[in-house]
Amino acid sequence: MEKNNIEVNEFKIEGRNAVIEAFRSGKTIDRLFVLDGCQDGPVSTIKREAKKQDTMIKYVTKERLDQLSDTGKHQGVIAMCAAYDYSEMEDVFALAEKKGEPPFVIILDNIEDPHNLGAIIRTANQAGAHGVIIPKNRAVGLTATVARTSAGALNYTPVVKVTNIAQTIEELKDKGLWFVCADMDGTVMYDLNLTGPIGLVIGNEGDGVGRLVKEKCDMVASIPMKGDIDSLNASVATGVLAYEIVRQRLKK
Amino acid sequence: MEKNNIEVNEFKIEGRNAVIEAFRSGKTIDRLFVLDGCQDGPVSTIKREAKKQDTMIKYVTKERLDQLSDTGKHQGVIAMCAAYDYSEMEDVFALAEKKGEPPFVIILDNIEDPHNLGAIIRTANQAGAHGVIIPKNRAVGLTATVARTSAGALNYTPVVKVTNIAQTIEELKDKGLWFVCADMDGTVMYDLNLTGPIGLVIGNEGDGVGRLVKEKCDMVASIPMKGDIDSLNASVATGVLAYEIVRQRLKK
Repeated sequence: MEKNNIEVNEFKIEGRNAVIEAFRSGKTIDRLFVLDGCQDGPVSTIKREAKKQDTMIKYVTKERLDQLSDTGKHQGVIAMCAAYDYSEMEDVFALAEKKGEPPFVIILDNIEDPHNLGAIIRTANQAGAHGVIIPKNRAVGLTATVARTSAGALNYTPVVKVTNIAQTIEELKDKGLWFVCADMDGTVMYDLNLTGPIGLVIGNEGDGVGRLVKEKCDMVASIPMKGDIDSLNASVATGVLAYEIVRQRLKK
Repeated sequence: MEKNNIEVNEFKIEGRNAVIEAFRSGKTIDRLFVLDGCQDGPVSTIKREAKKQDTMIKYVTKERLDQLSDTGKHQGVIAMCAAYDYSEMEDVFALAEKKGEPPFVIILDNIEDPHNLGAIIRTANQAGAHGVIIPKNRAVGLTATVARTSAGALNYTPVVKVTNIAQTIEELKDKGLWFVCADMDGTVMYDLNLTGPIGLVIGNEGDGVGRLVKEKCDMVASIPMKGDIDSLNASVATGVLAYEIVRQRLKK
């Protein structure tokens, strides 16, 4: 697992699309590193945004950028900004209320791969989930790779870090949410009613949903598996289940 | 893009689950490298499978494994085997016929990220697609990372490499397939009839489906996007669309 930049309270955003998205979403960027001599369209857009927001621009060599880069995919631009702030649970409910929708949260029981976490935050944003909840320990946090893989979604979708997933489920049940976790021995997802206020629980890449967490869930949903192997990739499974929720909500 | 091991006609499979799956699927493994002194359950299973199949086992140091590894995630075992053979289009139709199902293929118009290709092959297997079609040029091929990310699915789901995607679509139309591509300006996928013999076309991560390829398609499907960003990850989008096909076929 890579180092979590949150701890040092500085966060790198790497790659052109991610940096443009960060500026446009109004994120405060402290310093912008740009490859010296780079003049093309996307880089000019980034420099214009930086000037608009009085961001300090440093022109550096490719070697310096490579050295600064965590992902090796900076595409000539790295933005340093304050750490991505984790949101509070209130932010999630405020977003649902603002949109006038029954709350929809995605709870990740120990996702370890930053590409999966990033893709899931991106999916959460597009499927209209109001927040993503991750555990404090063992799981991957909001690293540079996560931010990049989220393709900007991290700027819009609140991510909340909690101490204990099972306890959080209990607390959210008191607020009226129903919980469905993904597991192979569950009811086929098309046969469940997923239209109400809901928490979708996705397990670890290798081990699935933990026993204690699973016991707290009201429903267990399975994705029909017609294949020869064990399971789907965790972010793909999240997408398939989240969009079953979208489909049922649209139909209602 | 990483080096394509197909060219050198030798292929590495790294990591415990991937190696076990390769043995169990009957793949011919030439040599097996195991971390010297490693005795735990999964490794013993692998050694047993290797002995059953008369595979040469070499016990090596961690340094040697790290050096051999393309992914950095060998978990103490690397299997060297003949290159993954690409399948022929006949294999895809034979599989559909054997299962007594209308053909379902996934066509990838220039997927570049090996993690996406691997996750898509895994999804194709689980969603019951009979094959994955990729272009010869520019796109990523069946590298070690793809094999690992496919979680064994590469042993079961035929992957066919073609020279020209648009021309292949024309040829498959003659065999009775309908083509649907994914794009944001399409009809919401729930409103399309996706139950017949079908080819699902997914575009490049950044640019989407090419114009020529899109023009060949009978339908353009969109996934409802409720978010603030542009799109979903390519493998997640493939999963969501492939499972809409699964849902419609189950309902029929």
